[in-house]
Amino acid sequence: MTRQSRQMLIGLQLGNGYGSQPMSWRAPGVDPANYTSFDAQVRYAQAAERGKIQFFFLPDFAGLTSDVTNDSPQLTLEPLLTIAAAARATERIGFVATGSTTFTEPYNLARQFKTLDVMSHGRVGWNAVTTSDPNVAANYGAQIAPRPERYQRAHETIQIVQSLWGSWGEDAWLKDTETGRFADPDKIVPINLQGQHVASRGPLPIPPSEQGQPVIFSAGGGEYGLGLAGRYAGGVIGATFSIEDARAQRESIREAARAAGRDPDEVKFFAGVMPAIAPSVREAVDRRLRIGEYSLEKRLPYLGSMLGIPIEASRLDRPLTPEQLSAARPSPFDPRAPRALEVAREGWTVREILAHGVIDYHPTPVGPASVTADHMQEWFEAGAVDGFWVSVDVYEDGIDTFVDEVVPILQERGLFHTEYEGSTLRDHLGLPRQYGLDPRLH
Amino acid sequence: MTRQSRQMLIGLQLGNGYGSQPMSWRAPGVDPANYTSFDAQVRYAQAAERGKIQFFFLPDFAGLTSDVTNDSPQLTLEPLLTIAAAARATERIGFVATGSTTFTEPYNLARQFKTLDVMSHGRVGWNAVTTSDPNVAANYGAQIAPRPERYQRAHETIQIVQSLWGSWGEDAWLKDTETGRFADPDKIVPINLQGQHVASRGPLPIPPSEQGQPVIFSAGGGEYGLGLAGRYAGGVIGATFSIEDARAQRESIREAARAAGRDPDEVKFFAGVMPAIAPSVREAVDRRLRIGEYSLEKRLPYLGSMLGIPIEASRLDRPLTPEQLSAARPSPFDPRAPRALEVAREGWTVREILAHGVIDYHPTPVGPASVTADHMQEWFEAGAVDGFWVSVDVYEDGIDTFVDEVVPILQERGLFHTEYEGSTLRDHLGLPRQYGLDPRLH
Repeated sequence: MTRQSRQMLIGLQLGNGYGSQPMSWRAPGVDPANYTSFDAQVRYAQAAERGKIQFFFLPDFAGLTSDVTNDSPQLTLEPLLTIAAAARATERIGFVATGSTTFTEPYNLARQFKTLDVMSHGRVGWNAVTTSDPNVAANYGAQIAPRPERYQRAHETIQIVQSLWGSWGEDAWLKDTETGRFADPDKIVPINLQGQHVASRGPLPIPPSEQGQPVIFSAGGGEYGLGLAGRYAGGVIGATFSIEDARAQRESIREAARAAGRDPDEVKFFAGVMPAIAPSVREAVDRRLRIGEYSLEKRLPYLGSMLGIPIEASRLDRPLTPEQLSAARPSPFDPRAPRALEVAREGWTVREILAHGVIDYHPTPVGPASVTADHMQEWFEAGAVDGFWVSVDVYEDGIDTFVDEVVPILQERGLFHTEYEGSTLRDHLGLPRQYGLDPRLH
Repeated sequence: MTRQSRQMLIGLQLGNGYGSQPMSWRAPGVDPANYTSFDAQVRYAQAAERGKIQFFFLPDFAGLTSDVTNDSPQLTLEPLLTIAAAARATERIGFVATGSTTFTEPYNLARQFKTLDVMSHGRVGWNAVTTSDPNVAANYGAQIAPRPERYQRAHETIQIVQSLWGSWGEDAWLKDTETGRFADPDKIVPINLQGQHVASRGPLPIPPSEQGQPVIFSAGGGEYGLGLAGRYAGGVIGATFSIEDARAQRESIREAARAAGRDPDEVKFFAGVMPAIAPSVREAVDRRLRIGEYSLEKRLPYLGSMLGIPIEASRLDRPLTPEQLSAARPSPFDPRAPRALEVAREGWTVREILAHGVIDYHPTPVGPASVTADHMQEWFEAGAVDGFWVSVDVYEDGIDTFVDEVVPILQERGLFHTEYEGSTLRDHLGLPRQYGLDPRLH
């Protein structure tokens, strides 16, 4: 058993410059101009690197669909350029960005991700996802193709991208001033790949980075998602609310890797966490109340439907009644419902129940840093995950809090490394070197 | 007459990390690993900024077609990511990158260029070019369309890109923590543009930069090229070997702008220069001989055909004979031929003639910095150009030489500014503010 398999891996989500919680642009201490501030993103990256965090994960979505009247868009202006800025200001932390296989040409994806990998000295990953949102398609004057076709294009795109990465041979760059040989042309060869949806000839004129080429990540499960993860992914960005579900997802992914002829330890599964950290549960709830001051009540109707009871807006600052609590039936369709009822039974007001993050996108441990560390330890030791991607509520102080309070607990417990194992993202994740297509997949 | 129209503008070409001359990767004092070094690119940008250079121009080409056995590719690994790195390490200098209208989606172009403009605080330009090389098309699994179709797509792409830039209204971002208004949704509107070749709905979720949006550049003349330049360009990257031709090109561009309803002073014409600078002509030739040591002789056959005489390889280190000189007839098809003959008549050896840059892509003033300054002054005062884009032979010391020796002469003569006029590329170029499509073109 290697060191990596005994210790958890941690990524941090990086988005709009404010934080992952709604209304974080308006949170105390946050500069509301951070949406366009790359200095802020650089500061966050440096803070995370201080905590030996393995990577930042930058989700992406090529469009604007949220209402921006009172809240900011969720994402960075553009993830690759954000990484270019943050990589120059850091030395070890990795950067994984989402790039759509549906609307970007493989040659452009291959070129930009490999350039970033060279710029960062081998610290980049590509989260290769298909796009199914018609709002994004409209930005490209396109329609959304049926799922089988989208995934067919994804397979073709990833294979072309990896082949382009390998098209400048790993030892092709001689740069020998004595002999005057710049490169060995026999090792720089076109790929001539023609798929049904995309094609490219190559070669790509980019030498290898310190890790060879970027790590592929994937997100999303199901038969099609597993097909991608099993064949190509070094990491999977997951979303799950229970240890059992996480373990099942992780097993499916490992099985898909085995089926593709790979060692399942070459695919790391990351579950999401959205911690609410403060010295006490009360203070952690108060922090979330302050951040979400202007938005929590909008979520009230959903809380009611999740618990199967009507909740009047007038109850916002009162606990549920004994009648409501006994009538509540957690929705079988929402895995977050049991936790919501549990919190309600503790006697919190409705607004406070919501401030526990009970309807957030990932589990929310609430309270001192040890609560978050306990959550992570429990899931990790249950074999449910290889690590976590952590969405910090407000970046400005939240990354420091995670790094200064949660990370040391995990380190003391021997669950998280105290120093980077190497200089590249593959080193950090304990992944084997790969250059070009994986020959086992041929 | 404004200050800008009395003083010349200067851009520097930025490519592969070595220099614009063949074999510069092997030149004395050059690190042969600079092809992948973004630290080197940052150093060059800082040197140019010290000289108050208005912008760097980063050409681009999505493919590898040159023989890399003995020489490097000419271009940066990827221009936009290079700019992201260099912009963070500089404060004033602008960055103009080529981006193809033929093989990149308008939404991606709009998003990445505007993000760069925000990152750099308003210092970015987009050189919008069509791509006609089948080698590039092959990298996208595509064919090259006929010229009218390529230019039709270019018009559509530029219009969509500029419309997307304007789709987040200039004053839409309120970020008012008191009222809780993040943005004014009435000022963030879809563009719904459907062309024959490309389309996009928008909006783009990116607020304006300090200059609003990037400056459009164009390159290439002819009826189609002028159609683009006249309508959209704030700068035109030219290639010309004589004052007469430059003046004619500049006049055509200005006329095209007038025809499109614009003020011709809103389009700046830049001619190329490839100076060879050293304390004396002899030393400047020797410098070029050292840089081109391993490649100059390959150009010998072309020199012969340009002069209309056979030149044996054995003559490389001897001057042309009196018989050769009197038989020489400069090719009417190559505007560089008269200069080549002039240099030959001065009695230089054939290798030295070539080292004068007589068959380089742009005029090569050879000798002390004043020779280059004289060349630039003569062209500028003849009304042939608004400025120059200068291709330095070897970046490592060549940018410093240009900045420390040529720039002060031009400044003493009152031909070049001594301080940046403002903070944005539009400020540097004396261009009016523009946001979204130019309303005069409607």
